[in-house]
Amino acid sequence: MSVMADYKVTFYPEGKSVEVPVDTTILRAAHEAGIRLDARCGGQGTCGACRVRVINGNVHLPPSGKLSLSDKKKGICLACLALVRGDLDVEVPFSSRLEPADLFEETGENSACGYVFSPGPLTEKFFLELPEPDKHDRLCDWERIRRHLRSRCELEGEFEIPLELLRCLPGLLRAAGWKVTVSLTRAPGYFVVTRIEAGDTSGENYGFCFDIGTTTISGQLVDLNARKPVSGMTVYNAQAAFGSDVISRIVHSQQSPGGLEQLRCAALEGVNRIAADLIKAAKLAKEDVGCVSFAGNTIMTHMLLGIEPKYIRREPYLPVVNELPYLTARESGICIAGSAPVYALPGVAGYAGGDLTAGVLACGMHRSGEVCLLIDVGTNGEIALGGSEFIVCAAASAGPAFEGSGVTCGMRAASGAIQKVSSPGRDGYEVNGDVAARGICGSGYIDLLAMLLREGIMDRNGRLKQEAPGVRPGAHGSEYLVCSSGGEDIVISEADIENLKRAKAAIYAAASALLKHVGMDFAGVSRVYISGGFGSCINVESAKEIGLLPALENKRFVFCGNTSLSGARSVLLSPQARGEAAEIASRMTYCELSLEPSYMEEYMAALFFPHTDLEGFTGGGERG
Amino acid sequence: MSVMADYKVTFYPEGKSVEVPVDTTILRAAHEAGIRLDARCGGQGTCGACRVRVINGNVHLPPSGKLSLSDKKKGICLACLALVRGDLDVEVPFSSRLEPADLFEETGENSACGYVFSPGPLTEKFFLELPEPDKHDRLCDWERIRRHLRSRCELEGEFEIPLELLRCLPGLLRAAGWKVTVSLTRAPGYFVVTRIEAGDTSGENYGFCFDIGTTTISGQLVDLNARKPVSGMTVYNAQAAFGSDVISRIVHSQQSPGGLEQLRCAALEGVNRIAADLIKAAKLAKEDVGCVSFAGNTIMTHMLLGIEPKYIRREPYLPVVNELPYLTARESGICIAGSAPVYALPGVAGYAGGDLTAGVLACGMHRSGEVCLLIDVGTNGEIALGGSEFIVCAAASAGPAFEGSGVTCGMRAASGAIQKVSSPGRDGYEVNGDVAARGICGSGYIDLLAMLLREGIMDRNGRLKQEAPGVRPGAHGSEYLVCSSGGEDIVISEADIENLKRAKAAIYAAASALLKHVGMDFAGVSRVYISGGFGSCINVESAKEIGLLPALENKRFVFCGNTSLSGARSVLLSPQARGEAAEIASRMTYCELSLEPSYMEEYMAALFFPHTDLEGFTGGGERG
Ligand code: FES
Ligand code: FES
Repeated sequence: MSVMADYKVTFYPEGKSVEVPVDTTILRAAHEAGIRLDARCGGQGTCGACRVRVINGNVHLPPSGKLSLSDKKKGICLACLALVRGDLDVEVPFSSRLEPADLFEETGENSACGYVFSPGPLTEKFFLELPEPDKHDRLCDWERIRRHLRSRCELEGEFEIPLELLRCLPGLLRAAGWKVTVSLTRAPGYFVVTRIEAGDTSGENYGFCFDIGTTTISGQLVDLNARKPVSGMTVYNAQAAFGSDVISRIVHSQQSPGGLEQLRCAALEGVNRIAADLIKAAKLAKEDVGCVSFAGNTIMTHMLLGIEPKYIRREPYLPVVNELPYLTARESGICIAGSAPVYALPGVAGYAGGDLTAGVLACGMHRSGEVCLLIDVGTNGEIALGGSEFIVCAAASAGPAFEGSGVTCGMRAASGAIQKVSSPGRDGYEVNGDVAARGICGSGYIDLLAMLLREGIMDRNGRLKQEAPGVRPGAHGSEYLVCSSGGEDIVISEADIENLKRAKAAIYAAASALLKHVGMDFAGVSRVYISGGFGSCINVESAKEIGLLPALENKRFVFCGNTSLSGARSVLLSPQARGEAAEIASRMTYCELSLEPSYMEEYMAALFFPHTDLEGFTGGGERG
Repeated sequence: MSVMADYKVTFYPEGKSVEVPVDTTILRAAHEAGIRLDARCGGQGTCGACRVRVINGNVHLPPSGKLSLSDKKKGICLACLALVRGDLDVEVPFSSRLEPADLFEETGENSACGYVFSPGPLTEKFFLELPEPDKHDRLCDWERIRRHLRSRCELEGEFEIPLELLRCLPGLLRAAGWKVTVSLTRAPGYFVVTRIEAGDTSGENYGFCFDIGTTTISGQLVDLNARKPVSGMTVYNAQAAFGSDVISRIVHSQQSPGGLEQLRCAALEGVNRIAADLIKAAKLAKEDVGCVSFAGNTIMTHMLLGIEPKYIRREPYLPVVNELPYLTARESGICIAGSAPVYALPGVAGYAGGDLTAGVLACGMHRSGEVCLLIDVGTNGEIALGGSEFIVCAAASAGPAFEGSGVTCGMRAASGAIQKVSSPGRDGYEVNGDVAARGICGSGYIDLLAMLLREGIMDRNGRLKQEAPGVRPGAHGSEYLVCSSGGEDIVISEADIENLKRAKAAIYAAASALLKHVGMDFAGVSRVYISGGFGSCINVESAKEIGLLPALENKRFVFCGNTSLSGARSVLLSPQARGEAAEIASRMTYCELSLEPSYMEEYMAALFFPHTDLEGFTGGGERG
């Protein structure tokens, strides 16, 4: 599309071509061709994930330590560094790709913990049988609807209607014989009509809820009458092409002209892909979906809406907005009914977002008379501590290791993932789905680390014992061979272990420091809620063995699954949930751990398996 | 632009060309070329106003009684009937054109009658000196603004902000050193931020008010701080190309595909032309204008906003909307700051619109302890009767004769218009501006009729005396020569007199019938407010002599000028005015005169100069 278009780059096996100017990176060209490469480091040449093979043509290759000589001989290069200098044929291996959309069903209770909120969808439908006007009843069309809503539906307050709906109103009312269904949503202080349909369609009312994660985006189509999800879907957040964590994405937004807009489009594309697929599968039209809610960390929320996030990175770490104003689908670019409301779960601070509010709401800890702890084992490990009296929260930058990013054979909890490990050898692991193993997901890594520690294959520092069975020298230090599958070896390297150790240390230290901040320790915590994509299949024993979770008795742990998503679903379905979400966000106080003197100590001490202070640690609670 | 483009039509003297398919009318082609023809009958071949001369080329000419043989010999034809059958050169004479925009100054008090409303512009500016955030004051940007508005500006309630403003917020706040000016408007139940500017711009705050008339559109740029208009301008409503009255325009909207959209664009073009010209003359940018109010009859209001008006024509004559919801400039297409509010004066019924509400508001009759009468001598003569106790209203379809349309030499009150007539002969008339006479405006016609009646040149029926000086046979019956100017004769024909007689009868009969409806007569009216474009220069004596106004003593008449415009200006400047406008619209009851048995009688009786029942008439009040 560029006016300077010079060279044609063709990607295989698809055979898709694009024309790009000289010195474009292959990563950029792939992006334009619609091929999603796994560019975890944001294209800085440091992660090595974007490997492609140049079959034909002229490229300029800056030197890179991420490639071996044999790689280079095969024509393998890093897409983010290689510059187009002629027409090219490029092969993109499976392992360098972001996975295609992975449709799966996910259903659940209204609240992750079984609490049922009072009903009342974000967009409500009212079937109106309006009296036909005559010379004794001369109300105009819009006032006729308002009178009916006030007198028959007993709604009090002001009503607003977008001009575009007013324009269709008279024809619709008369064609429908004055029997119409009005969709209404409550904005602060007034009602908005978001749709008017002929006849009685009040039996059909749908909404979407989304979890906008740094690594993945999950969505559900929700039947607002039945109060349950119809279908769900998770896709990778295509922002990964600009960096695997929020910070490298902010850097991208600052360094590339139009970078923020690229990030906005990348996230929005995921949301709209889910929306389109689920709408199609349910045989609906996009106008049939009358509301959306979403939860995400503060940076994701800013980026999805195109709001400048860069000040979150700088002292004093301020977002532009925690509690979003009333938004429409049209404004936000989400492809459902244009006038539909978009409700974002309110956040608390730059590093404690709407996803944490959703988590508290979903696990219900804000109603508890006892002190509870919520740990989100995600890329931005967010933590909340408290109950009905107080709630404090903090962020632990755990990194994406437990979500399968930044580790050699990591993948998310999807088919082909090793999700459980009990012992070394063939029978010691369990694969998600009836397929060959192709990687390891978060719960698999937790089990694997615990097994390696238990079997003495790995020491408490995370170093592999050279002489232990399965351990061998790898490309980057020692590695342990979990299995061979389809000609590829699935391994965990010492570098991977280091990454995972840091992630678990960050989470554990954040929880400890937060407890210290309020003068408590783990023993005083009556319940630990664990949320995250893998949340429901994690092995508590393993997690305690490696020191990710504190050594409390098992019954104190509750796995809540994706609470960001279930919290978003609750607000879609209940005004009570919306009220509680606002209340949670307003009374939750944020604790900046980098300013807590104890945090670094805690973190350093947690950089062992399970912990430096083994005594103190195992003594910190009762064994389950 | 059409894919079937066949023939090129060039209009002179401009030399503008368009390509149109075979059988397009020349009127349509002219419209596409941006040349505004005076098509008063809406292109039905009946008004004869759209005369053009074909210089070259092939046209198909249906027969028309509006053209003489000598016209035809000269190549003159009606643009609305002539069909393009080949490349054409067409000359458009001055007399067939809608006048170009005519800029004039108009200033005035806040209320037409000197009443000063409590101040408070529709969009208010607040200069905020926000405290810079630090580690002890971690409010996010948007919450920081809200806190300040609540605590310092003492505003209570919810605040909303459009996403587009939120997107610019962080950069702007920091670039401005946390000193910004926020524009706020009050929507029902909450505040909306409509603009944020760096520094203190609270000294500059502008809005527009408009009168959307059937024949003309007037607008003023208002300095909201000084509480007075900066400049004003009136243009013809380009909808005239689709018919001179509201009914023929509704017919157009029903019969032509896209007709309503054409009408919307035609009215909007006038509004935006005024807006652009006044903004430019004041050396402002369009973003500097932060609010708009407008008043118009119900059909104009519907058409300007693209809302289907056709049901207003059918029993039970219902508009889609009387009280418009909160609208933005962006939605309505008005070219000022996109998020600026657009406030439409609320109407009462299909034939009693926001212009009448504005009129009542401007003359202040709703506050009067005595009974007052408001007569709008416009195309849709609207009438209100009452005071603080009650207000009833009605519509008299007077037609556009008093606005200078539908009469041979009619024009609006602009330069070149004969505006006063005292006696026959050269010294007997006065021309607006220092130019030669080129037509007669409403006040001129009233004087002229009174003079003709007084001098015995015209009888009480409106027939010209053949033997009287100045009377001669004309193209369509007898005519009276007022003067010759620049080679053209300015005349009034018997057909013109008939039109004017019907107009005055409609207005007088409506007022009488409305009085009868409440059991009163003219004697009980303490004050008669006259509004309309010419309102301030009309001669009461003449109006009484011809029976347009009742024979009350002169001091009971108050001329208010364009109350639609001054009412719209008041709501722009005062929350009290906005409150009163809503109250007026809600308590004013509409009386459908076509259902009043007395109306037809009154109308028939008024079809004489001054009236059939001369005794009863002159006895109906005291002579002034
Ligand atoms: S090395 Fe290319 S994206 Fe990371
Ligand atoms: S005769 Fe052509 S517009 Fe009226």
